[in-house]
Amino acid sequence: MEGRATASTPAALPYYVAFSQLLGLTLVAMTGAWLGLYRGGIAWESNLQFNVHPLCMAIGLIFLQGDALLVYRVFRNEAKRTTKVLHGLLHVFALIIALVGLVAVFDYHRKKGYADLYSLHSWCGILVFVLYFVQWLVGFSFFLFPGASFSLRSRYRASHVFFGATIFLLSVGTALLGLKEALLFKLGAKYSLFEPEGVLANVLGLLLACFGGVVLYILTRPDWKRPSQAEEQALSMDFKTLTEGDSPSSQ
Amino acid sequence: MEGRATASTPAALPYYVAFSQLLGLTLVAMTGAWLGLYRGGIAWESNLQFNVHPLCMAIGLIFLQGDALLVYRVFRNEAKRTTKVLHGLLHVFALIIALVGLVAVFDYHRKKGYADLYSLHSWCGILVFVLYFVQWLVGFSFFLFPGASFSLRSRYRASHVFFGATIFLLSVGTALLGLKEALLFKLGAKYSLFEPEGVLANVLGLLLACFGGVVLYILTRPDWKRPSQAEEQALSMDFKTLTEGDSPSSQ
Repeated sequence: MEGRATASTPAALPYYVAFSQLLGLTLVAMTGAWLGLYRGGIAWESNLQFNVHPLCMAIGLIFLQGDALLVYRVFRNEAKRTTKVLHGLLHVFALIIALVGLVAVFDYHRKKGYADLYSLHSWCGILVFVLYFVQWLVGFSFFLFPGASFSLRSRYRASHVFFGATIFLLSVGTALLGLKEALLFKLGAKYSLFEPEGVLANVLGLLLACFGGVVLYILTRPDWKRPSQAEEQALSMDFKTLTEGDSPSSQ
Repeated sequence: MEGRATASTPAALPYYVAFSQLLGLTLVAMTGAWLGLYRGGIAWESNLQFNVHPLCMAIGLIFLQGDALLVYRVFRNEAKRTTKVLHGLLHVFALIIALVGLVAVFDYHRKKGYADLYSLHSWCGILVFVLYFVQWLVGFSFFLFPGASFSLRSRYRASHVFFGATIFLLSVGTALLGLKEALLFKLGAKYSLFEPEGVLANVLGLLLACFGGVVLYILTRPDWKRPSQAEEQALSMDFKTLTEGDSPSSQ
């Protein structure tokens, strides 16, 4: 770890990351406030079990998933493997919390005798969850499991990044649909009277969209990408020559 | 136009573009089918005026906006200016059709005495429309109006592309919210009985999300970007030397 040249952090990046965290924490807090103020709070063994669902999804599939995507932009000078493990672990936490949220809503529906999986929100939600799990498994097999060759990794990397961003955006869209569903089922025609709950939920919806937008911006700015470090480049060269069967070039 | 070396089109690109068009046309047709089969069709001077709104938005803010983004990937060997004008024109058509859709819903609300702009869908919709209009104006001033310098254009280009893609994705999200709203206001608890209208609208929602995903994929694949042509590179060099005040290098 010694003797590594530290790459400088782009000047504006920390402000954008801080802004994303402010948005993310505010949207989680606002989800909690919405459930506490207008939906009676949260509990597992009661009618309040449903409320576990939106809170878990806001924490897991929005905030933690978004933060997992930002790991490579934030930890620019750590060893690649450390950053990779953190990226994988944050996604595991997000998946587990989302699973709790999923169990909560299915269990609540079962106890109440409600139908499952009839709405667009639920279809998108199941799609997101399955895609997210598959993406994690494939990502783990390629990047953390030691078997995959360097050339296989670098060919898969672009798809991993694209699908990661797409699944995140689909998660944000699914959350917006769920929020709208919860609002319309309860408020109905009262929604048009600018009820405080409706206005608060609309603001929460805008926060969700903004968080998605800011994470996407940080992720896609080419000059904010994590630079390869000296020893990674050397290692990559070794891998490359090994996997492609060339003889190492003289240095 | 003579003597220009034509850049080869990546092998898979035409298939992806064809698939995006199939998705786009299917989603517009399915919106029409939904309104025709379950909402009584379309007319301006009656209760059916509302139905103008979803159809116009599906055509303008989803299909045409998506296609306008793909213009640079599809027309790879046309003169840059032709492609640019087509890009701008498709966005103008999209804006005009969206404006008709917007007038339809406000006029319908006024006649019925309904409140305006209370829902998350309407907030996101107004945001999309304003951002889209501003993006068009700024894009026109920088890229089609002859005043902007080469260096100003190239500095603004990345933001233009990012905001263009973001506004398109926000349009897709807003359409999903609107679809859900229209469904829940009419079906209410019947939505959970897997009514044919609900299932059709859910499939329409998935088509919307898929169209967004495929357009984003075509747009972001680095090796599918439109290559600069020989005379554009020469022109850029001239502009660059002119704007930066360097003397032209000898050739």
